[in-house]
Amino acid sequence: MNKPPLTPLSSLGEFGLIDRLTRRARLTNPSSCRGAGDDAAVLDYNNGKRVLVSSDMLVEGIHFDLAYVPLKHLGYKAVAVNASDIYAMNGTPRQITLSIAVSSRFTVEALDELYEGVYLACEKYGVDLVGGDTTTTTSGACISITIIGEADKDRIVYRNTARVRDLICVSGDLGAAYAGLQLLEREKRVLDGNSIAKPDLDNHHYILRRQLKPEARGDVTQRLREASILPTAMIDVSDGLSSELLHICRGSGVGCRVHEEKIPVDPCTASLLEELNINPITGALSGGEDYELLFTAPLDNFDALSTIEEISIIGYITPPEEGCHLVTRDGSLVEIKALGWTNFKNNE
Amino acid sequence: MNKPPLTPLSSLGEFGLIDRLTRRARLTNPSSCRGAGDDAAVLDYNNGKRVLVSSDMLVEGIHFDLAYVPLKHLGYKAVAVNASDIYAMNGTPRQITLSIAVSSRFTVEALDELYEGVYLACEKYGVDLVGGDTTTTTSGACISITIIGEADKDRIVYRNTARVRDLICVSGDLGAAYAGLQLLEREKRVLDGNSIAKPDLDNHHYILRRQLKPEARGDVTQRLREASILPTAMIDVSDGLSSELLHICRGSGVGCRVHEEKIPVDPCTASLLEELNINPITGALSGGEDYELLFTAPLDNFDALSTIEEISIIGYITPPEEGCHLVTRDGSLVEIKALGWTNFKNNE
Repeated sequence: MNKPPLTPLSSLGEFGLIDRLTRRARLTNPSSCRGAGDDAAVLDYNNGKRVLVSSDMLVEGIHFDLAYVPLKHLGYKAVAVNASDIYAMNGTPRQITLSIAVSSRFTVEALDELYEGVYLACEKYGVDLVGGDTTTTTSGACISITIIGEADKDRIVYRNTARVRDLICVSGDLGAAYAGLQLLEREKRVLDGNSIAKPDLDNHHYILRRQLKPEARGDVTQRLREASILPTAMIDVSDGLSSELLHICRGSGVGCRVHEEKIPVDPCTASLLEELNINPITGALSGGEDYELLFTAPLDNFDALSTIEEISIIGYITPPEEGCHLVTRDGSLVEIKALGWTNFKNNE
Repeated sequence: MNKPPLTPLSSLGEFGLIDRLTRRARLTNPSSCRGAGDDAAVLDYNNGKRVLVSSDMLVEGIHFDLAYVPLKHLGYKAVAVNASDIYAMNGTPRQITLSIAVSSRFTVEALDELYEGVYLACEKYGVDLVGGDTTTTTSGACISITIIGEADKDRIVYRNTARVRDLICVSGDLGAAYAGLQLLEREKRVLDGNSIAKPDLDNHHYILRRQLKPEARGDVTQRLREASILPTAMIDVSDGLSSELLHICRGSGVGCRVHEEKIPVDPCTASLLEELNINPITGALSGGEDYELLFTAPLDNFDALSTIEEISIIGYITPPEEGCHLVTRDGSLVEIKALGWTNFKNNE
């Protein structure tokens, strides 16, 4: 089958490329007055709300491997992980700026694919693309997104405001994105050794989707709002449950006790991790990239929280002197340590 | 002389590194409610103003060469070029998020130096650092800044609103940053050939500063405000005068006529470019990185504009059918073409 010819980036020139990539950007939020095309976008936030702003950077070889991450998924994920930060403040995402730097080995079609994912996520999360930058690298690719959201002043939820006796809750399930990454890495090693082998990915749709196309949990903050529950503290799970628990506890000056058997792990995740000789709870605690919401809520929300299917109550906040502990299935206490971030240790 | 020992990034861990880099971030703008340290920064813009947002990305090997760009200057410049975008909308910069990705060959001290420049520029432009991301690359460095500013709704100046008969004005002088880059590239070539040679940079302070530590022209928009002049269209000169003139003219559906002898070029710039066999006007038209403001204003502002030292009136807007032309010193007309952006043509 003949593939259509691909177009080098140099053939379009700056104006042509930017026009092609931003042509589909529609401004749907009333707060988006003017989008890409001038020195800055113009936003209108004179309605008594607070503006939230957050930035994330994704680097080739660190955060994604183009050997197994389709560009469309990468674009989608880049937006979703930023939206997750706004939801984690109990806000609503409204606009993004997208800056990308790619080498000339990327083609116009490759960027089209990346932007297709970006626009899909913009639609999903009700976000307008209002600007950014498009440039080159000598090698590799880098994507930087800044997201802007809004929230009612009195409903913003920070990560350092958990209180003793609060319930600790988490949405969805954990460890699946990590399991997906392990699977993709394994299949890449197989392929590197034998280019005829077909990756064995068929029975792993769920965990692959969780790694390649994660969703930000605006549906969860929406459900909480509908149930009249205002979390006392909240953070999104990007670096693994341990790391985020410690963020909340250290920031709030409290301790915590989390029960191993309450930590939600999907059966597919558990079976794959076991196959790979990884303890599923380790995957949940240290794996990262789940983009679920970890939050605390007053004890008297227990009944209301119990009725929400997507939410698991996994423990409670303690006085600081009790430390941060996991209660294992056999009842022993294990201190929670952050193992998430080791970026600077693994390269060059 | 013994140098103090340098610290690998891996020695600090994520929390330690972020704490070290953001410790000096002071929030000085009333609109900065909460800065770095949560999922998102919180800003308050409920005062009837518009929010402006702009992003720029700087990539090692494309936008800067660490062989001759000190990291402190790089940090300063990264903020200044973003502030320039907000001034070019006739706004006031207020906050930035800063995302950086560096390889582990960078040390903690190197990032300290980069952030020193960032904080210096934040102070200079009255901007608060409110968030961002810190991550790694397999090689090279990438800096992405998003800047947020504010403006009165009725005083925002776009680039597509120039009108026929408007005056065309530019602040400061042009081509110096380009001359500085040529000089640095030449001295790097000399040094590559003979490591004992001392760079011959002594008499070129002005053009080197213009390349390494450009300033955003908030002073110019301030002067215009004081003189009760509201530009009809405005853009900052980042890609060279030609490219920016065409942005304004194409966007506004007009033509222009610019007089070569009115284009402001500093004598140091002119003499260096001549020494390098480059026509100084070519440097001004196509050089880029000047970060001066190019704007149009009603004809009846002529007298007021003439009294402002930093501003040169270089031409006027014509009907679109007259095209975009430079009137050379000998009176002939040369069509203005954009030669600025050729990023994708030069690498890999």
